[in-house]
Order: sequence, then structure tokens, then C-alpha cells
Amino acid sequence: MDMDRKEKQKEQCSSPIYVHNPHLDALKDDILYHFSLGTGSHNLPAMFGDVKFVCVGGSPWRMKSFTEFIAAELAMEDPKSEYPNICAGTDRYAMYKVGPVLSVSHGMGIPSIAIMLHELIKLLHHAHCTDVTIIRIGTSGGIGLEPGTVVVTKQSVDATFQPKFEQVILGKTVVRSTDLDQSLAQELLQCSKRLNQFETVIGNTMCTLDFYEGQARLDGAFCSYTEADKQEYLLKAKEAEVCNIEMESSVFAAMCKLSGLRAAVVCVTLLDRLKGDQLSSSHEVLNNYQLRPQKLVGSYIKQQLKAKAENR
Amino acid sequence: MDMDRKEKQKEQCSSPIYVHNPHLDALKDDILYHFSLGTGSHNLPAMFGDVKFVCVGGSPWRMKSFTEFIAAELAMEDPKSEYPNICAGTDRYAMYKVGPVLSVSHGMGIPSIAIMLHELIKLLHHAHCTDVTIIRIGTSGGIGLEPGTVVVTKQSVDATFQPKFEQVILGKTVVRSTDLDQSLAQELLQCSKRLNQFETVIGNTMCTLDFYEGQARLDGAFCSYTEADKQEYLLKAKEAEVCNIEMESSVFAAMCKLSGLRAAVVCVTLLDRLKGDQLSSSHEVLNNYQLRPQKLVGSYIKQQLKAKAENR
Repeated sequence: MDMDRKEKQKEQCSSPIYVHNPHLDALKDDILYHFSLGTGSHNLPAMFGDVKFVCVGGSPWRMKSFTEFIAAELAMEDPKSEYPNICAGTDRYAMYKVGPVLSVSHGMGIPSIAIMLHELIKLLHHAHCTDVTIIRIGTSGGIGLEPGTVVVTKQSVDATFQPKFEQVILGKTVVRSTDLDQSLAQELLQCSKRLNQFETVIGNTMCTLDFYEGQARLDGAFCSYTEADKQEYLLKAKEAEVCNIEMESSVFAAMCKLSGLRAAVVCVTLLDRLKGDQLSSSHEVLNNYQLRPQKLVGSYIKQQLKAKAENR
Repeated sequence: MDMDRKEKQKEQCSSPIYVHNPHLDALKDDILYHFSLGTGSHNLPAMFGDVKFVCVGGSPWRMKSFTEFIAAELAMEDPKSEYPNICAGTDRYAMYKVGPVLSVSHGMGIPSIAIMLHELIKLLHHAHCTDVTIIRIGTSGGIGLEPGTVVVTKQSVDATFQPKFEQVILGKTVVRSTDLDQSLAQELLQCSKRLNQFETVIGNTMCTLDFYEGQARLDGAFCSYTEADKQEYLLKAKEAEVCNIEMESSVFAAMCKLSGLRAAVVCVTLLDRLKGDQLSSSHEVLNNYQLRPQKLVGSYIKQQLKAKAENR
């Protein structure tokens, strides 16, 4: 690589994390309440300054197991270490770190992941992190896909299949874009092809505020529509290139875009919603499916860190 | 009490839990996935048939500590018992039971509590429970109240101060009422007066989809408004009799009303939002505040069970 290209790449890569809030400078301490961390109580640059990859997912158990997996993948595992939960002072979220990889749980639904992302973006900003890639690894319901298929999200769309997220601010609705990094999505797809262990596709992801009525399930406590209504709605979603349905991608895409984080959503489908609603596969099968986004993202991070080390 | 009144009371009290879903009967098993329970794998009537009170709150730790507290309050504590988590097969929610009192965590935000409530309502229905009272015990931001004040919700209102919850079904918005049981709210207020340990008020509760921009905080990762805009919005809320702000009450009220559950929301205010945004009080002070809804609801349940035993 010649010097010009190298310099250009370096320049392109040096992306800070943007907070867009003039009031933050006036705070003496910034308490990240739901992490039980803060600028007054913790040395955030020392703790997090080297972070280059953040992986987030709903379940705290899954994010701990991802940390163990990535530690082995990067040959950074410490057999004596138990990977302490950095947010041990609270039970709202769990956070683990191995080398440049941070792993954080976010609970279920848009409000829960939004609280986490506000505090994560401030954390990365306070820690002076640069060039951070963030990937949500999750589970979802598929539409017309074999269960176990991994979907890398092209666009996150709402329940009317529009690529937007509505944020209410002071009682008024502000519409935000849900664009994700298309080159990162392609890199993840290529990485899955090399890995060659399971089917991976790129497609739209529908993000809903509810798991039952909001996703046209017939097995909630309330259901006012027929099986035919459900099929009609899901087929309309399929026509809009929706491959899967989950509950966090829209606000994740919107907030990452605003803050300059390179972001992707990688979710496995646990069932085909055209064929049913209940998660009736065995524990073993579902567990195996849930490992797939971890394997793909683990492999991608390993490859990226290797390429970076070679370019140094 | 004469026989007529007794009969009338008995008749009034024998309320089943309503699911409104004709499809449920067709299910051979009903898997309550996020509880890791099901009708095929568990004897729900034997496990839960005696439940008369359900207390729900965001934090799993808090719901465990509530169970320990209520066990002591009802003199039902088993010094050897560790109150096992009934949902130990998953980390989505935690559930504990002591006698007729069930305690369940629900995470943060409307989508997270809605998933829990769908599965809880089905659980109570499958277990043939009757006459169930459900109370959310939570934390909130107050408006113009001394921190530590407990608010029993009169009406849950949205970010425009309207008493409604918008549920999206098959891409279309359905408006649901957020009425709560007014007699239960009054009984809780009276109970707090007898307890005489902290200030309790009845007022409206604003339920938002976001903790930062959605609640006019100035300390999120993004903030596009001024301190004056914030004050104006919160004072408008105060004019609409909003006493506190949290993130679950609207869907809780709507779903409990639909299913015939007698419901109340009891939240302590951790700070006065007119004076600030950050939760900067000491851990001890905040912990003490968080115990107040537990104490009030524990005292109420004890009194109700005592009255019921005397009427037998």
C-alpha cells in the first residue's frame, strides 16, 4: 500500500463518536445511571479507550457467552478470568469486555435499547473512542425463510414497511432515518460465505413495538384478527422485502447513524412466521440457532483485527 | 355482615381473567416462551391457582427483594428457602411466589412489559385464577414533588397528556383506554395514610417511549432543545395534573383493563425533574426511596388478606 492510500485510509478511519448535546459540557459529572458508571466515579478513557467493536444483544446471558466466545476466537482468553460484569452495580444491563470488543445487553424493545444506546454513546464519547463498529446480534421471526437462517439487515422498516423511526420529543414526533452501513452489511455477508456454516441473506427487517398483536401473532392474550388476516399482513411485508421481524433495529439504526457509529444488525430467524407463531423447537435447536450471529460476528471481528494488524 | 351483603360481595369478587383470543383453544400446548413455562411442560393450576396478588416491577433484583419482604410481612418466610426464580430457564424475566403473592420483573419500557403481560395473563387464565389484583411498583421522575414521594396513578397519559395507549395491530393503530381501578387507588392512598411513613399522592402519570429525549432530559446523547423548552413542557404536563413520568403504565393499564385484572400503579419519584435530570442522590437514598412502594403495597396486601380471613 503506498503512502497516499495509507494516509487517506487513516484519515477516513479516524471517526469520533458524536454526541449532539450542548448541555453535556456543563455537567460536572455525567452519571450513566443504568450502567452504574460515571465520569466522576470511573476513568472511562482508561477503561474503554481501546474499544473498536461493540456487540449488543437482548439477553445478558447471551452477551456473556459471546464474550467467552470472542475471547477464544481472538486467543485472548484467560482461563482464570470469569469476565466480570462491568455493570455489576445494576441489573438493568450487563457489560463485558475482552480487548477491543465490548459486549452489552439491551433488554427487549425500543425503549430499553434506546436507554442503553444513549448511555453507551456517551460512554464511548467520554472515553474518546474512535472508529467504532457496532453490531446488534439478535433473534427474530423469519418470513418465508428456513428457521436458522441469519439475516443481515439492509433497511429497518416500521409496521407499515417504511424505513423510518418516530422519536417523540417534547410531545412532538420527529422522524429519523433508519439507514444502516451498506458496506458493513456486504462485508458480513461475504464473511458468512467464507465461514460456510449456515445460510445468510441480506434483507429488510421489520421492527415492531410488540411481540404478539404487533407482529400478527395468533397466540397472545388478545387477538382480534383471523389466520387469513395474519397471512395477508405477513405476505405484504414479504412483498416489501421484509425477511424478518424483531423489536430493536429501528432505533438502533437511527441512533447509531446520528452518532457516527458504523452499524449493522445480524439476527437469526428462530421460526418461519408464515408457518406458525410459537417457539416450539427444542432448547438445543434454538440454542444452536442463537449461536449463529455470534459465530458470524466473531469471525468478522477476528478478520478485521487481523487485517488491521497486517496494515500497521 | 348479613347474608345478602356477603352473597353480593362473593358474587362481585368472583372475577375470572379474560383472554380475548379464540385461537388459544386450538393450541395443544401453549408455550409461554419468555417465562420458559408452558401448559404442556408445567401444571399451571397447581403452581399458580391460588394467586390473588401479582406485583410487577422493572428490576429482577427488586422483585426478589419484594418477595423476601412480603414473606416476612405475611409471616410466611422460610428461613431456609431461597425463593427460587420460577423462570430460571430464561433471563428475560424473573418470577417469585410466596403464598398468594406472585412477583414478576418486566424490564424497561412498553414493549418489554407488554410481552410479560401477554404471557402473565395467559398464565393466570390457564391456572384458573380468580379475583386477582395486580400492582406495578416502580420508580419515576416527579414533577414538582419532593423526591421520595410515592405517586398512586389516577390516569396514565401519553406524551401529549391524553389518557390513551396506541396499539399497532397489522400495521394499523388501535386506541385503548388507560383507565385504572379508582377504588383500588383510593384504598392504597388510605393504606399509606395509616402507614404514615412517607408522603403519598394520587395524580396522573405520563408514560413515555424514551427516558432521555422522550422525557425532556437535557443529559442524553442527543438534545435539540433548551432548558427553557424543557421547563415549558414539564409545566404543561403539571397543568395536566401529571405528577410523575415513567415508561410502562399506559400499556399496563390498557392490558389489565382488557383482561379484567384490578390494577394499580405505585411509583416512587427519585428526583424532581423541574430541578434536574441526573440521578445523583446517593445509592443509600435511592435504595430507601425504592423500598417505599414495596412497603405500601406489602402493607396493603397484608391488610387485604387479614380482612378476607376474618370474613370467612
